[in-house]
Amino acid sequence: MTNIEYLTSYVNHFVETIKQAGVQDIVMCPGSRSTPLAYAFAKSEGFQFYRQIDERSAGYFALGIAKAKKNPVVLLCTSGTAAANFFPAIVEAYYARVPLLVITADRPHELREVGAPQAIDQLHLYGKHVKWSVDFPLPEQNEESLAFVERHIQRAVSTSRVFPMGPVHINVPFREPLLLDMEQTTSNVNMQVSEIGKLVPSEEFLEWYRDILQNEERGLFIVGDSLQTTDGFWEFAKLVRWPVLVDPLSNLRASIPAECMDLCIDQYDAILKNDAFKKVAVPNVVVRFGAQPVSKPLMLFLKSCKPSVFIAVDESPIFRDSLHIATHHVQVEAGSLWIKTLEKASSKYADSWSQANEIATNHVNSYIQNETDEGALAGMLFETLQDNSYLFASSSMPIRDLDTFFNKTTKDIQLYANRGTNGIDGVVSTAIGAQAALNRPGYLLIGDLAFLHDLNGLIVTRFHRTDMTIIVMNNDGGGIFSYLPQSTETNYFEHLFGTPTGLEFSHIAAMYNAQYSAVHSKEDFKAVLTGEKLKDIRIIEVFTNRQVNTETHRKLWDEISKELDSVWKVQL
Amino acid sequence: MTNIEYLTSYVNHFVETIKQAGVQDIVMCPGSRSTPLAYAFAKSEGFQFYRQIDERSAGYFALGIAKAKKNPVVLLCTSGTAAANFFPAIVEAYYARVPLLVITADRPHELREVGAPQAIDQLHLYGKHVKWSVDFPLPEQNEESLAFVERHIQRAVSTSRVFPMGPVHINVPFREPLLLDMEQTTSNVNMQVSEIGKLVPSEEFLEWYRDILQNEERGLFIVGDSLQTTDGFWEFAKLVRWPVLVDPLSNLRASIPAECMDLCIDQYDAILKNDAFKKVAVPNVVVRFGAQPVSKPLMLFLKSCKPSVFIAVDESPIFRDSLHIATHHVQVEAGSLWIKTLEKASSKYADSWSQANEIATNHVNSYIQNETDEGALAGMLFETLQDNSYLFASSSMPIRDLDTFFNKTTKDIQLYANRGTNGIDGVVSTAIGAQAALNRPGYLLIGDLAFLHDLNGLIVTRFHRTDMTIIVMNNDGGGIFSYLPQSTETNYFEHLFGTPTGLEFSHIAAMYNAQYSAVHSKEDFKAVLTGEKLKDIRIIEVFTNRQVNTETHRKLWDEISKELDSVWKVQL
Repeated sequence: MTNIEYLTSYVNHFVETIKQAGVQDIVMCPGSRSTPLAYAFAKSEGFQFYRQIDERSAGYFALGIAKAKKNPVVLLCTSGTAAANFFPAIVEAYYARVPLLVITADRPHELREVGAPQAIDQLHLYGKHVKWSVDFPLPEQNEESLAFVERHIQRAVSTSRVFPMGPVHINVPFREPLLLDMEQTTSNVNMQVSEIGKLVPSEEFLEWYRDILQNEERGLFIVGDSLQTTDGFWEFAKLVRWPVLVDPLSNLRASIPAECMDLCIDQYDAILKNDAFKKVAVPNVVVRFGAQPVSKPLMLFLKSCKPSVFIAVDESPIFRDSLHIATHHVQVEAGSLWIKTLEKASSKYADSWSQANEIATNHVNSYIQNETDEGALAGMLFETLQDNSYLFASSSMPIRDLDTFFNKTTKDIQLYANRGTNGIDGVVSTAIGAQAALNRPGYLLIGDLAFLHDLNGLIVTRFHRTDMTIIVMNNDGGGIFSYLPQSTETNYFEHLFGTPTGLEFSHIAAMYNAQYSAVHSKEDFKAVLTGEKLKDIRIIEVFTNRQVNTETHRKLWDEISKELDSVWKVQL
Repeated sequence: MTNIEYLTSYVNHFVETIKQAGVQDIVMCPGSRSTPLAYAFAKSEGFQFYRQIDERSAGYFALGIAKAKKNPVVLLCTSGTAAANFFPAIVEAYYARVPLLVITADRPHELREVGAPQAIDQLHLYGKHVKWSVDFPLPEQNEESLAFVERHIQRAVSTSRVFPMGPVHINVPFREPLLLDMEQTTSNVNMQVSEIGKLVPSEEFLEWYRDILQNEERGLFIVGDSLQTTDGFWEFAKLVRWPVLVDPLSNLRASIPAECMDLCIDQYDAILKNDAFKKVAVPNVVVRFGAQPVSKPLMLFLKSCKPSVFIAVDESPIFRDSLHIATHHVQVEAGSLWIKTLEKASSKYADSWSQANEIATNHVNSYIQNETDEGALAGMLFETLQDNSYLFASSSMPIRDLDTFFNKTTKDIQLYANRGTNGIDGVVSTAIGAQAALNRPGYLLIGDLAFLHDLNGLIVTRFHRTDMTIIVMNNDGGGIFSYLPQSTETNYFEHLFGTPTGLEFSHIAAMYNAQYSAVHSKEDFKAVLTGEKLKDIRIIEVFTNRQVNTETHRKLWDEISKELDSVWKVQL
């Protein structure tokens, strides 16, 4: 075999094993050292193949696909700082538990650490922020190599896929020449992963747990962000009849069976700002599935009442409990706890939650009707979302507006955000990646700083079609900082945190040939939202005011609290 | 002392120690957790204080300042992926040996790895790509803390500054509240670094080395990129009278004393493509200062002739020698080898180099006069650069055009590029950072992909004045890939490597209120280059053709080779 033939069989086998392992999507960044893998992926049929020039955006784009598909996505780049640019998305994937197969091409050993161009130390490049990292051998003729490649790729894909899912890193050195024999066929893959077990609880535990569900009246479910399935959850909740506090990212605020609508509590952020209601709402037992919710009032409430039983269902030994209130960590897959062998009636406790939730919902709805600030506009956006659409919310204010103003619905609307590390980076890319995977009309709600941070997320739209409406809430700077205590240092605040750039995005729309609308009023916004889609990308820039937002949000919370007082302060 | 008073004294002391250690520049990214340090830096007088919203660009901006000033620059951000975004610039700083003081704010220990927002594992976050990494204690009342802060900051600054210079990382956790007493004064810093020694050679070595310089006729100096001073080099070279092959990034192609112009060989890239000349040019001894040069023909030449003595002068034990031809690694500061105690006459060997260099220079000059491709345009740009200006060249084609078309000059023109890892990322930011530090008119020569990659580098211009002319060679895609062997796979090539985006940058100019010119001809380019500067940033977009560039460059090299043949092929 010539060297070229051997290199070809090595990369063909590499790519074929990835395909056999069930990976469907490849995100590639152009570069020289990764040429053999790029060619092998490109000529292999059956992959969705995406390109992005900016590796940072590419990382987040792959993350978006993987999030939506709940399946590992290949992220491929050349050697050098290209690989370092993946780091932010890898960190997010690690904490958000999203499966990525990061493949970095590398220089051969003799060109490492000797001042050769584009050669950096890529071994364990991502430190503790990948589940596994492995350095592959050079494609030299060795009968063990193909079997090694097969086994290690299967391991890598399984590792990324097993709960808690996450990124893995494969470093692959290549020596020049980087040419392939493009006609050569692929050999068979001999080894496969036949079965991956599920994390299920013991019978003893289930018995104890069933007892609690059956007998406890003052119980709450909390459901946060997770890539695990939610199939079967509502059937289960309907039997237990505990109030269910659903974070928008649980994807349980939409597609709710009509008969479960009353159990779904989506206004906990508002109603848990009221002291009187908090007193009647204290639970004895809480079972939390998925990540901790976004809502700060909910966190403060849980921390202050410290339920005597707080079960954190978390598939990882490094379970999430920043409040330090979990009394039981149950390390199983959430669905294994959605048992169907009990039946209960509703309770006064559950009714209180429903009643408070309805009070808040009415206020929120009239706020959406009557106000004109960012929150009301976001609420209007959520109301206009159609069945079978999806919305991505940026970190910072949009995710909070989603929490407050996205009302539970029977419509099928998927909701996403990057909450592994809550960064405002990579948001455009993740949203477009999720759109590509879901193949349904996409909406992105984002602030001006986050949009600016990942403008390069739009580059993929030059190579791949999308169907995306981007709503940029332009309040010219860092809106969320206005809510922080340090905002009182007015001498320095605007300079250090507000960071108004004065930039407007009509130019970006023109550059990317996107449909653009500048919106200065609520009426305009409504008209634009329901107007015709003339292009694949639509950018709606909504000009708002940071100061007004802070004030009107506070007014809404006060009004809800006042009505809750009128019900529960009297009763106490 | 209250907690606020103590936190204030902690960060004041932190900042004062940094100032005492001689750091002058602070690059800050807005965020919440880093508030105490941001306020302390902002209110401390005597720093140059810069802001950037995109942390990746901020990293490269700080790198640019540090490169130009040869002094550590503080790079400050909040916790989470903000810190991960610094990674590419840190990797570049590590390999380019540029001093950075990276300060990441962190959550306190009880919020790490428990699912708290914006909390990632920041300990040793940058792995092996920093010279030192340290986790600071929480600012809790402890009499040891201020002394610890003082000593560890002094260490960090010294570590970044001692050769080989490079980045260091300080991780600083803060617990809420993050408020300071803004009136509180700063305490005295008690400890300082009084002296940092120089790496100098022994007398025995110097004797051996002086002998070689004195007696060897066929000797060459090669001078590459370095942050070490070049003061005194030409005085030394004038005495030895060996040809000096100067990489443009050595900053020895400009400000050359008139009497040394003949020693300066700047056309080695062209003349070492000729076999006949290569035979007469074989050296017995090579002494290389700084990094390996950009030129591939030079590398191939050195590799093929393997000089019997090749002295790599490199201040690091991890010395740069990707060709594996160094016979002596001399681990000292370059200037300590520029001895002044010898005197020689010129030699036939040196004259051959001068003669060949002149032949190439004539061809290059007439090429610049007569051709219209990217190279000729770049050459014209270099000719128009004024005394006291500086130029930053992107990786990929611009650095190669700089190597070929930047003629040695007595004018004072500084030249920079990011060659630690040769990335095309962060180029705009590094260029603007260097401009801020040098405070002289700046020029950036960059391709369309590199410009697109770091468009966010322009954000700093919203907060800080600059004087920068950006020349974007827009050939719509990855020009350099056309030179690679793998470009022959035409079925896949354009799709995978060309990546034409079809984007034009007039929109970006409008967004950033920059002066914009679209250039389609050489005449236009000349007119624009010499035209009036109406705004702080000028973007000149030059539309060129990838295919033509490849062909005309090859023609130039062939013509030079032909004339060299006519001189030396005959002699052989």
